[in-house]
Amino acid sequence: MIISMRPHATREEIDHVCERIREFGYKVHSIEGEERVVIGVVGIGDVTACLESLEATPGVERAVRISAPYKFVSKEFKKERTQMRVNGLEIGGEEFVVMAGPCSVESERQIMETAESVRKAGARILRGGAFKPRTSPYDFQGLELEGLKLLRKAKEATGLAIITEVMSDRDAEMVAEYADIMQVGARNMQNFALLKSLGKCGRPVLLKRGMSSTIKELLMSAEYLVAHGNSNVLLCERGIRTFETATRNTCDIAAVPVLNELTHLPVIVDPSHATGKRSLVPAVARAAVAIGADGLIVEAHPDPEKAISDGAQSLTLEQFSKLMQQLRPYIELWKESRQAETAGAVV
Amino acid sequence: MIISMRPHATREEIDHVCERIREFGYKVHSIEGEERVVIGVVGIGDVTACLESLEATPGVERAVRISAPYKFVSKEFKKERTQMRVNGLEIGGEEFVVMAGPCSVESERQIMETAESVRKAGARILRGGAFKPRTSPYDFQGLELEGLKLLRKAKEATGLAIITEVMSDRDAEMVAEYADIMQVGARNMQNFALLKSLGKCGRPVLLKRGMSSTIKELLMSAEYLVAHGNSNVLLCERGIRTFETATRNTCDIAAVPVLNELTHLPVIVDPSHATGKRSLVPAVARAAVAIGADGLIVEAHPDPEKAISDGAQSLTLEQFSKLMQQLRPYIELWKESRQAETAGAVV
Amino acid sequence: MIISMRPHATREEIDHVCERIREFGYKVHSIEGEERVVIGVVGIGDVTACLESLEATPGVERAVRISAPYKFVSKEFKKERTQMRVNGLEIGGEEFVVMAGPCSVESERQIMETAESVRKAGARILRGGAFKPRTSPYDFQGLELEGLKLLRKAKEATGLAIITEVMSDRDAEMVAEYADIMQVGARNMQNFALLKSLGKCGRPVLLKRGMSSTIKELLMSAEYLVAHGNSNVLLCERGIRTFETATRNTCDIAAVPVLNELTHLPVIVDPSHATGKRSLVPAVARAAVAIGADGLIVEAHPDPEKAISDGAQSLTLEQFSKLMQQLRPYIELWKESRQAETAGAVV
Amino acid sequence: MIISMRPHATREEIDHVCERIREFGYKVHSIEGEERVVIGVVGIGDVTACLESLEATPGVERAVRISAPYKFVSKEFKKERTQMRVNGLEIGGEEFVVMAGPCSVESERQIMETAESVRKAGARILRGGAFKPRTSPYDFQGLELEGLKLLRKAKEATGLAIITEVMSDRDAEMVAEYADIMQVGARNMQNFALLKSLGKCGRPVLLKRGMSSTIKELLMSAEYLVAHGNSNVLLCERGIRTFETATRNTCDIAAVPVLNELTHLPVIVDPSHATGKRSLVPAVARAAVAIGADGLIVEAHPDPEKAISDGAQSLTLEQFSKLMQQLRPYIELWKESRQAETAGAVV
Repeated sequence: MIISMRPHATREEIDHVCERIREFGYKVHSIEGEERVVIGVVGIGDVTACLESLEATPGVERAVRISAPYKFVSKEFKKERTQMRVNGLEIGGEEFVVMAGPCSVESERQIMETAESVRKAGARILRGGAFKPRTSPYDFQGLELEGLKLLRKAKEATGLAIITEVMSDRDAEMVAEYADIMQVGARNMQNFALLKSLGKCGRPVLLKRGMSSTIKELLMSAEYLVAHGNSNVLLCERGIRTFETATRNTCDIAAVPVLNELTHLPVIVDPSHATGKRSLVPAVARAAVAIGADGLIVEAHPDPEKAISDGAQSLTLEQFSKLMQQLRPYIELWKESRQAETAGAVV
Repeated sequence: MIISMRPHATREEIDHVCERIREFGYKVHSIEGEERVVIGVVGIGDVTACLESLEATPGVERAVRISAPYKFVSKEFKKERTQMRVNGLEIGGEEFVVMAGPCSVESERQIMETAESVRKAGARILRGGAFKPRTSPYDFQGLELEGLKLLRKAKEATGLAIITEVMSDRDAEMVAEYADIMQVGARNMQNFALLKSLGKCGRPVLLKRGMSSTIKELLMSAEYLVAHGNSNVLLCERGIRTFETATRNTCDIAAVPVLNELTHLPVIVDPSHATGKRSLVPAVARAAVAIGADGLIVEAHPDPEKAISDGAQSLTLEQFSKLMQQLRPYIELWKESRQAETAGAVV
Repeated sequence: MIISMRPHATREEIDHVCERIREFGYKVHSIEGEERVVIGVVGIGDVTACLESLEATPGVERAVRISAPYKFVSKEFKKERTQMRVNGLEIGGEEFVVMAGPCSVESERQIMETAESVRKAGARILRGGAFKPRTSPYDFQGLELEGLKLLRKAKEATGLAIITEVMSDRDAEMVAEYADIMQVGARNMQNFALLKSLGKCGRPVLLKRGMSSTIKELLMSAEYLVAHGNSNVLLCERGIRTFETATRNTCDIAAVPVLNELTHLPVIVDPSHATGKRSLVPAVARAAVAIGADGLIVEAHPDPEKAISDGAQSLTLEQFSKLMQQLRPYIELWKESRQAETAGAVV
Repeated sequence: MIISMRPHATREEIDHVCERIREFGYKVHSIEGEERVVIGVVGIGDVTACLESLEATPGVERAVRISAPYKFVSKEFKKERTQMRVNGLEIGGEEFVVMAGPCSVESERQIMETAESVRKAGARILRGGAFKPRTSPYDFQGLELEGLKLLRKAKEATGLAIITEVMSDRDAEMVAEYADIMQVGARNMQNFALLKSLGKCGRPVLLKRGMSSTIKELLMSAEYLVAHGNSNVLLCERGIRTFETATRNTCDIAAVPVLNELTHLPVIVDPSHATGKRSLVPAVARAAVAIGADGLIVEAHPDPEKAISDGAQSLTLEQFSKLMQQLRPYIELWKESRQAETAGAVV
């Protein structure tokens, strides 16, 4: 951490800051510039408390954190990509993983038909919400336990792994019985009670980036999961909120290489929520493969027009199947690049 | 709802859309323009499902909602301001309400000293977190039950009402035993499991606007509380996230008159989180009184520099006391205006 | 400037960075932390070039600027508020200045009627666009020279000073003949060719904040004006662009005290553009007075419904007159506070 | 356009609105809903003036535009992609176009070396700024005319076409003498005086999206160019401003397919400004090819560390050359898809 003092800070103010830093157990290293004094804080451990304490102390202009506030999720902590085995599938390795399915589980027929179809098209994981976070209290809130049971049925029939959302720490245990991957929705990315409970759920967690969360905050929420015992975390870019209204969200596609520089965790892109519009999904999906994501999570539905939720951004099963074909050559290029990386080649 | 068709939509596409609208139970009223057909959807009840179903139907360019998606919280439902009695104090009426206290309850001494001081300065409600939502898992997470007990002690000693945050539906019952007002933090504004549980908690709820939530979404979350049984909701503007980094958040001060046009619920402004910087708090507090908020929630601490959290934006007890003096003439103007309103005068 | 090296930066990388810093003429002061090396750059003058050069040098994690990139506009350069005399009126001093008038000058009748009315209500400066920046090429682009002449006529009739927008360096001279204050619109805040030409125009300039410009960028654009010879700059907060659509822009009201901490230049608030909605203007205007702005710029029109531009946010002349009455007690409080400041009292 | 009246609008208010619409020359078509009246406005021509006039008329809740405010740039006006021939190269057709070069022209040696190298690597157009828009008045402002002459020299030596920025309508003629493509920078996207002058410059224009401009506004600025006589417009996505600070801007990659749906103009992606960081450029460049952009504009410099501007985001010439190799298979896939489209195949 670096504390920069105001240009006319008094000697007392400077001394006071140094004293405070030492009280926190750090060493002080001050630099007398032409205009102001800058104080380096040297030591081990998290400086958040010290930083917050000092940033409004008299004479202080600014306190700047140097070291990242996350640890276990950082590439400095672990260089190799985190790989996790889910239902026989390796995520984070040399296979590009596609998750697909409806926004909500609506009926046995709907989920079974979808599961069969997306499996045939090449998806390996079935998505489908049993608990639905809805902006309005009057909208469909999900089939809950019944939805979970239908997902299990679809898994038994198709062999697909299941990913589904959990919305409350109260439900974590129940959802974990049915899901292969627990999904944390964008609105719950900083629901810390939920994150803590998922630290102990024994299942990989797909953590969706909050719609106004920075990449750093996403990593801090992942750090919650790891710090509470769960190191199988998948990060998901699903679009952020900006001033642009032509799309439902703004897909921050560069978050993928940024995350690849900062963390060893796999990164999944959700082109459905990122755009909110069916016709844009294939283009963004291609971009996600090309930029080096580890996988996709895509909404698909037998009859999107009659979907209870997110119809506008769901592909039909036929469209999903076409998308998978269209992605094939891009996924080939992706594999070559991933294998070259594993082989130690400079990419 | 209005459906505007693409300029070259076919007759089949138009007919299909009309049919779908009728299936949802609405009437169709179409307008043949020079370039395109626009279809009005007439009927009663929430159109969300119909809108989501149609917005990506072939031939449809755009579906625009006309009626607001919230109901009970709207001014159309109820014109008079919602007033609620808390510990002998009327919120939402002719008294400007100030809530003050530390970010976190840290110790008996800290909370008692703060309570005494802010009460003397004119605050009527004591704030203080026992459960703390922290970005980092390594930061102080609150004293939890012990913190709640200290708040009760402070209430007994000073007569101040208590507002404190609840982070999980699991804790709602426990917190309700100690709190006069339940606070929902910005990160939990769309934690729907929590909102549902607070519908039945029997206490007024202060709902903080999410850092990237629109005013409409804030009202939808309030609607959750009301629809689940709790009509005593306070809305809180605490700054939104924008590109500007000079302040911690951007105080959307115009949200106050916007909310006053849309809803009968009281609006509280939090100048501490809105700015993140102690020196800016008094100016924003004055603006909040002048613009017509119903109250303020302000962070104050006996020794902000040693505060475990949010030190940079906390006032000292002396600064808080000065602020209250400075606000006095503005609060006088506020009262005149509120009384004139009650007297039926045109404002 | 501070350069923080990556945790595993090599000795060569560190030496190379130090060498580069010395090439730029600065001294190096390095701090060996537990995890990484942090290098302080000590010296005089603008570090931008050095910073840009180093931020992507191998081994460098981050380069952080410590000193502000602006100079003449900063409070460190000059502590006293900048005051400027315009047509007998002192701006930036002990008088709260109100500018009012239509978005566009439309006709002699319109501008004369407006001028008379706003003068009577208490405005001291007449606003009105002769050159209009319009999003669409098909919208009214202003009366140009004829509009300027009408503004002069209104000035002669009422004694009001004139503020009007200049859109191109080509027109600067012509506009300066008619205007007492040259307005730079939000879309031109970083039109550097225009700023340079206004450095020599001999008139005060009101610089509107770009809709996505940071406070720092606003100050940098003001620095352009001062560096090119014009120290009479008024800054204008007119709302920034965010995700919120309930208002046309989001009024960053806290920008006023932030600017008061950073610069000696006067700050004007534009509640009309900040909200985009007539009914919200009075509330935001009150907040602007209470928070300590130096003045307001408000759109008013004899018949807003028939205004060629910005009708929705223009007050009628009667509403403007009422607003001025409503503001009176707030302006009284403002004056007391400003006089106390001048008298050297601690505020 | 649709006008939705407030639920309790009076008959007089409704009649007044209808009358106003007729005054503008449109027909009225009103729909009596259960809760409110909605009025359809039917007719030909731009409704902006009518919309602005009515949106704050008493009784009106909201006025919603149905038809797009741009015309010539829309796909409804012209279905086939706009192709333009520049120096023997066809842009917008079946060739993926890469523009590369330094941020600023700094010296003969620098620009000649860059030109030779990027041409060899496969670029067809040389970029380089002679007039530089810089946030600070103290930063290098470009070599101006001398820079233009050096660009011509590089063109003569290599055969590359030249793209360079024009910052003022005053310079448009001079720049057009040297440039094959005129670049309008992000800060000038709504410098309407400049756009008008470029309508007549006789050169294609690359229009960069403003950092807080919506896609619709970008198209409106393109419409300015076309309406003033220049139909050879290239649109450029170069990142927008959001709350995220991990990258210099947020690359709105989905803007590419959105623009492809709305307009016939070619779309170029600038991965350098979109990210601000050299290491992220290749990944975003791959995504841009895969998503279907018409070309790239990339910053490359012989010694980025010593670049006068934008060093951090410039590739070395060697890195640029590697990037071009890496892109090859993606460009192959791009060509196949483009040829299939031309052949009339459904994509």
